[in-house]
Amino acid sequence: MRSFGLTAVQPTVARALVDAANFGEVTGVEEGRVFADRRELYDAGVHRALQDGIVGTKDRGAESIVLSGGYEDDEDHGTVIIYTGRGAQDSKGRQTGHQSFEDTKNAALRTSAFTGEPVRVIRGSKAEGYRYDGLFNVVDAWLGEGVRGYRICRYRLEKCGSDSSVADLETSVSGELPKGNESPGRRLIKQQRIVRSTRVAEGVKKIHDYRCQVCAVRLEIGAYAYAEGAHIKPLGTPHNGPDVPENILCLCANCHVLFDKGAILIADDLTVSRNGKDVQLRVDVSHRIDVEYLAYHRSIHA
Amino acid sequence: MRSFGLTAVQPTVARALVDAANFGEVTGVEEGRVFADRRELYDAGVHRALQDGIVGTKDRGAESIVLSGGYEDDEDHGTVIIYTGRGAQDSKGRQTGHQSFEDTKNAALRTSAFTGEPVRVIRGSKAEGYRYDGLFNVVDAWLGEGVRGYRICRYRLEKCGSDSSVADLETSVSGELPKGNESPGRRLIKQQRIVRSTRVAEGVKKIHDYRCQVCAVRLEIGAYAYAEGAHIKPLGTPHNGPDVPENILCLCANCHVLFDKGAILIADDLTVSRNGKDVQLRVDVSHRIDVEYLAYHRSIHA
Repeated sequence: MRSFGLTAVQPTVARALVDAANFGEVTGVEEGRVFADRRELYDAGVHRALQDGIVGTKDRGAESIVLSGGYEDDEDHGTVIIYTGRGAQDSKGRQTGHQSFEDTKNAALRTSAFTGEPVRVIRGSKAEGYRYDGLFNVVDAWLGEGVRGYRICRYRLEKCGSDSSVADLETSVSGELPKGNESPGRRLIKQQRIVRSTRVAEGVKKIHDYRCQVCAVRLEIGAYAYAEGAHIKPLGTPHNGPDVPENILCLCANCHVLFDKGAILIADDLTVSRNGKDVQLRVDVSHRIDVEYLAYHRSIHA
Repeated sequence: MRSFGLTAVQPTVARALVDAANFGEVTGVEEGRVFADRRELYDAGVHRALQDGIVGTKDRGAESIVLSGGYEDDEDHGTVIIYTGRGAQDSKGRQTGHQSFEDTKNAALRTSAFTGEPVRVIRGSKAEGYRYDGLFNVVDAWLGEGVRGYRICRYRLEKCGSDSSVADLETSVSGELPKGNESPGRRLIKQQRIVRSTRVAEGVKKIHDYRCQVCAVRLEIGAYAYAEGAHIKPLGTPHNGPDVPENILCLCANCHVLFDKGAILIADDLTVSRNGKDVQLRVDVSHRIDVEYLAYHRSIHA
């Protein structure tokens, strides 16, 4: 292979960069395996903590969580889980105060939403044992209100591998890799971000001529321009924002990432705050924005 | 609902903006329905042309295609289809010359890869009739070489709706919409872009400290930074680029979109050409880039 004249990175160095944490499948542990107790889970390397529900670091993300079914704000829909962070809960799973992303474990699971690295999910309890239920992506992390009115850290997890196109990629890529670079059968590809669009969003983008309402960038691809429709109050459970123009911004891909992660916030007077710098949102007379949705967006990120 | 003081866009105006073409499901036509001939397909509104294999416009994208099984460069894997453009084919489906995206129908199907709007796929032939096989996303469009050595327009289509998380969203959103805004049962959400990452890509991003190798942007979200790993020779069939550092760039989301769509090209001396402006690719001594992959990337876009 020809190559540009730069020193090659040693494979071992590259591995060391990414393998300090233990993400993904654990070799030899198939989905559905049941463990008698937390010690067994720990020894198998599936969940490397005996007490904590979340294993991981703020810097790298979470590698696994235990879903005990005892917390009043958790929702388990099978392939979709709404998970609650830790802190201010009594022994019966009742919330007794506020939570925050300052907590390192709560922050770790939020980091997984940034990195796209999958999280092992274990369901179970002391009484019934613990079942390894496969890999999930943390597709959203936000501050929400629990049933008792406290502010809690919430996460939306979706099961990996239910998308056939991803499975297809995994297979074809595994065949390409040098032997020994990945454990056999280990998942290689993860989803980092899915950009969805709607018919209504197309209309909004057209109004703004595909120019970002925050930074004014217009991404041009020949005669075509590319923009993304960002829902202010997110679509889908549990936010259930509506798919209407008043809830959509026309953004470039970069500002969309920052907006979805809360690094861009927009005040009711349409002042945009991005990393401490304020600019004014670009508007168009035929596209009304509802400040109620802006307030919701701010509330889940700050 | 409170709102910022701008005139509301009339729903009818918004509809007119997006409904000139007939994208998505056709009301009353379920997947799997068989039509006797092209006339029946036409009359049902499933494929609104009697001869052409592609219906659509360069500006808006394709609304449907017919896959006849007679073309030597087509590949049909069920939920994944590698489709060939039109032009320079004889009556037996053999390629007799080059194709190009200058052809309006070939351009239309490529536009669908930009918009994310789904395409109806019909499989069949004069002898056996035509079956409506549901909606597919055009996830990639490129110039490739056919079995006879001619340059042909190629497309990768993936079936919609196999991703459970999308299905979940569709259900919850449909429930939110004002009555009459969408035909019942019509698909509302489409996938525009999936950003996938790999372990190897994580290593590359770390080397560059999550700073874009093209435009030097670093997307900061609190203490975390966000970047995307862009495979130069794409992963997955039919490109089958390898998941190795030499085939990966660390890019911001915007430059990733432009690179994947061919609006950013990189020469062997690492000069980046973006909308006619040239800059130098940012490099790091520990991250070697293989020029063979850069040449492949240029070849599929120009």
